Amino acid sequence: MENLSFGQYSLVYNAFSFTFATMAATTLFLWLGRSQVGHAYKTALTISGLVCAIAAYHYLRIFQSWEGAFNIEQGVTGDFNVTASGYAFNQAYRYVDWLLTVPLLLIELILVMRLTEKETVSKSLKLGGAAALMIILGYPGEIATDIPTRVLWGTLSAIPFVYIIWQLFVGLGASIENQPENVRELVKKARLLTFASWGFYPIVYMIPYTNLSGSNVTVGVEVGYTIADLIAKAGVGVLIYMIAVRKSQAEYGDKAVG
Amino acid sequence: MENLSFGQYSLVYNAFSFTFATMAATTLFLWLGRSQVGHAYKTALTISGLVCAIAAYHYLRIFQSWEGAFNIEQGVTGDFNVTASGYAFNQAYRYVDWLLTVPLLLIELILVMRLTEKETVSKSLKLGGAAALMIILGYPGEIATDIPTRVLWGTLSAIPFVYIIWQLFVGLGASIENQPENVRELVKKARLLTFASWGFYPIVYMIPYTNLSGSNVTVGVEVGYTIADLIAKAGVGVLIYMIAVRKSQAEYGDKAVG
Repeated sequence: MENLSFGQYSLVYNAFSFTFATMAATTLFLWLGRSQVGHAYKTALTISGLVCAIAAYHYLRIFQSWEGAFNIEQGVTGDFNVTASGYAFNQAYRYVDWLLTVPLLLIELILVMRLTEKETVSKSLKLGGAAALMIILGYPGEIATDIPTRVLWGTLSAIPFVYIIWQLFVGLGASIENQPENVRELVKKARLLTFASWGFYPIVYMIPYTNLSGSNVTVGVEVGYTIADLIAKAGVGVLIYMIAVRKSQAEYGDKAVG
Repeated sequence: MENLSFGQYSLVYNAFSFTFATMAATTLFLWLGRSQVGHAYKTALTISGLVCAIAAYHYLRIFQSWEGAFNIEQGVTGDFNVTASGYAFNQAYRYVDWLLTVPLLLIELILVMRLTEKETVSKSLKLGGAAALMIILGYPGEIATDIPTRVLWGTLSAIPFVYIIWQLFVGLGASIENQPENVRELVKKARLLTFASWGFYPIVYMIPYTNLSGSNVTVGVEVGYTIADLIAKAGVGVLIYMIAVRKSQAEYGDKAVG
């Protein structure tokens, strides 16, 4: 790792710790909320919570890996100097996390729509498979040390990405229009938030294409991916919860849910 | 341990971390799902979750053992060099895990079929006992340093293996045909996935018989067993959950489950 200023190091360090806490808290919120929704929506909340739980685990690992990758020493002037420790920061944790959570994020969106069983399985397989392919194709570019390799794999990874967006807006469009009126807007919001947060990842991926230098790239990439994860996992999870509660009230009534 | 390239080391390292996360997530998914199935199927989900929980524990240990078995140092060119640390990588964790989980995997398959109590107990004892014997006979071969010893114990271990497969396809065949129509295919899939993933283990076991050299054998064995464990435990667990949900809906209806 290149050397960072103490401020840069601390910013990323605290962002990772914040994200661990947020993901763990959202997990518990979603799982406790299972008892407040109808039978048909419990699995959606189980999976939304799982996504945040898996992310919490990985942010704990990323946090420790970041801590281990640098030595902090106080100089004679009292300032803290940050130097690379020689241990590699393991960027792969992010990809391992996404390989698990990104297909699940699409599945939670499908589950909360409550399509027919056949449609649920077929959409989950298609979207989940495309998501896994997108992550796998992105990784060789992320660890590449030259820009052309990063561009090549990034572009390949964009193919399943565009397919997923197309499925979300065209393939699922009819199903969304069939949602009950009081949740249609929420489902659209969840879709839009998924799209917006996912659009953030390629932008972060492209930071190294810019003129920014070493440590700024590192900080930009880490903080950028962290914000995108917070929105895509915790933010979308809370929306899924709101959809599940409203649909439960409409379908089961207040009494049936307990 | 022989020396590995940094890429080989990282592949196994990340595969172990990924598997810990997947096993822990599947455990929670299966246990949370207990509230969504009928009374008769709760034990099947409890045990499927236990299998994944035991595996999560062992993958955490295996991950730490792998980390401790190597030293990573950054050379002057910035590349990372991986050398054996002198601590042994503990392959026994896998066998201890299997000794517990493989009999439980067969029992979860039997439980979800909901046979008579007498049949459930007798099949569980027979299949569970054969599974334990298979693991115990395989271990001396796994830690053997010469091929003939590995072949000898591997062949002995194959006897209970063949008995289990015969029981699954012939002994349980009639019971599977008696399953309700909408789950018969799922039960067959669970049996086939068990068979397919189990067929993977002997193939991995035989990797050292090939012409591959030191570090490739290590990486092949570790990644191979890890993929087989993911399918046999998390994959079969999710199928067991789907069978339990469908059978519950048929037998208890939506209301009785809560």
